[in-house]
Amino acid sequence: MKKYFGGIEAGGTHFNCIIANGPDDILAEIQLPTTDPESTLSAVTGFFCEQAASRKIQIESIGLGSFGPVDLDPDSKTFGSITCTPKPGWQNTPILKILQKELSHSIYFETDVNCAAIGEMKWGAGKKLTDFLYITIGTGIGGGIIIDRKPVHGLTHCELGHIHIPHDLIRDPFEGCCPFHKDCIEGLASGIALEKRWKIKAENLPRDHPAWELEKEYISLALHNFICTLSPKRIILGGGVMQNDFLFPLIQQKTLSLLNRYIESPALSKHIEEYIVPPGLGKKAGSLGAIALAQQ
Amino acid sequence: MKKYFGGIEAGGTHFNCIIANGPDDILAEIQLPTTDPESTLSAVTGFFCEQAASRKIQIESIGLGSFGPVDLDPDSKTFGSITCTPKPGWQNTPILKILQKELSHSIYFETDVNCAAIGEMKWGAGKKLTDFLYITIGTGIGGGIIIDRKPVHGLTHCELGHIHIPHDLIRDPFEGCCPFHKDCIEGLASGIALEKRWKIKAENLPRDHPAWELEKEYISLALHNFICTLSPKRIILGGGVMQNDFLFPLIQQKTLSLLNRYIESPALSKHIEEYIVPPGLGKKAGSLGAIALAQQ
Repeated sequence: MKKYFGGIEAGGTHFNCIIANGPDDILAEIQLPTTDPESTLSAVTGFFCEQAASRKIQIESIGLGSFGPVDLDPDSKTFGSITCTPKPGWQNTPILKILQKELSHSIYFETDVNCAAIGEMKWGAGKKLTDFLYITIGTGIGGGIIIDRKPVHGLTHCELGHIHIPHDLIRDPFEGCCPFHKDCIEGLASGIALEKRWKIKAENLPRDHPAWELEKEYISLALHNFICTLSPKRIILGGGVMQNDFLFPLIQQKTLSLLNRYIESPALSKHIEEYIVPPGLGKKAGSLGAIALAQQ
Repeated sequence: MKKYFGGIEAGGTHFNCIIANGPDDILAEIQLPTTDPESTLSAVTGFFCEQAASRKIQIESIGLGSFGPVDLDPDSKTFGSITCTPKPGWQNTPILKILQKELSHSIYFETDVNCAAIGEMKWGAGKKLTDFLYITIGTGIGGGIIIDRKPVHGLTHCELGHIHIPHDLIRDPFEGCCPFHKDCIEGLASGIALEKRWKIKAENLPRDHPAWELEKEYISLALHNFICTLSPKRIILGGGVMQNDFLFPLIQQKTLSLLNRYIESPALSKHIEEYIVPPGLGKKAGSLGAIALAQQ
């Protein structure tokens, strides 16, 4: 009976579940819509149970990377829960406990973005790096920080999408849509913010739409801040919005111009196109990252 | 012959030199004004040589924490140099090489703020913590990040003072004084920024001056960003501006209100006065940190 690992990327829009040993050995995967917790998690357990039975394989352990905020403190009563998320119906959901009850496997728990960062570290654009950032710009904005080849947790976990950046209300009167901070970077530049500001779904915004000029500036301001704060060796930008790959050179140049040669490194001045990059694992960074987590 | 360690906190305004084994065993210390590199560094070497001779002690090794930006990469040709600093006369100064030539000791090199963080980790407010920030708000603004009990270097080193934050030009028409980024946090809230905006030296601003309301907001916006980015377990605020200890409760409350309960932790909601704190080593964090560095 061949052994496999399970990966769950629990996102605000979709749950991506995968059974694999790595990017070159993927047995099965599925994308499930994120509805209410009960239906969604029951579809997740259904997938793993059915696949294991029908394909006669054994799942060694499962990695779970969840949207958040989540409780990552193993000593806490609410360890493994989604806490004060703005996602309706998902506040205080003990996602790890529910899945552990239904699936008789060890499940390892992380934030969705730390999982993606772990996946990129093992098989993607962070393979040879000690310190880098993975940032997703999609429905929401979040990020995972790798320092010394380990994800940073700290007090709770990083919430890179919620930093404040300059916001010129005359140029951009959209007040921001983060329910906690209004015009933090998630409130200004996430997929939801794009849709609310321009009344067009982000994926339908044409390339010549003024949305992208503003989007480039906000993302670059955030990257400037992350570079000054953390001095990462690379920044990996994933998520739905970054599927618009014309954004990469725009963001690379704008970030350089904001830094204004203050941080002197050839990685920035000469090789910016290798410094701000898409994920090596593409859209699978999160789900394969959950596999990498399960294998740790 | 008793053994001691040497510490040099190389700042933009003063060089603090110390001969000690720790906070309870300080043999000698001196504060020298930062003039041109030649005179300043010759006064530094003079201090250590004279003290060692007259007191008949042996200096084991020296820790040097320097203002920057500096080159921390041991493989680089300019390792141990101050690079593109705005400080006139100090650009591209090979401070480590000059001191190593004059003083026949091993010298360990770090940023000034990483040194202070290392000192706080060994003897101060970071003693029991794995992950915390040390931020200095003085002539300039900078910070050292400790993760897993080690200072973060990354690509170059952290430059926490140069992040951008919201700046309402109607309320505060001062355009900012950072020569690289104008209204980054250093350009808006450093001692120099206070003096340039209000035409009064920061140390002479009375407690009821409107300067402090604005200062509180800018510092709290920066702390909000650092908390969201890094999730530190504590933030230690040192430097001349923070000698105004009435700022602590103001910053604690404003930071909480900006976070708006998004990051749920009793460390924030219940113990904010133990979360944003002054350095345990007071004004000696930097120079004693250099001693801790020399001892590593």
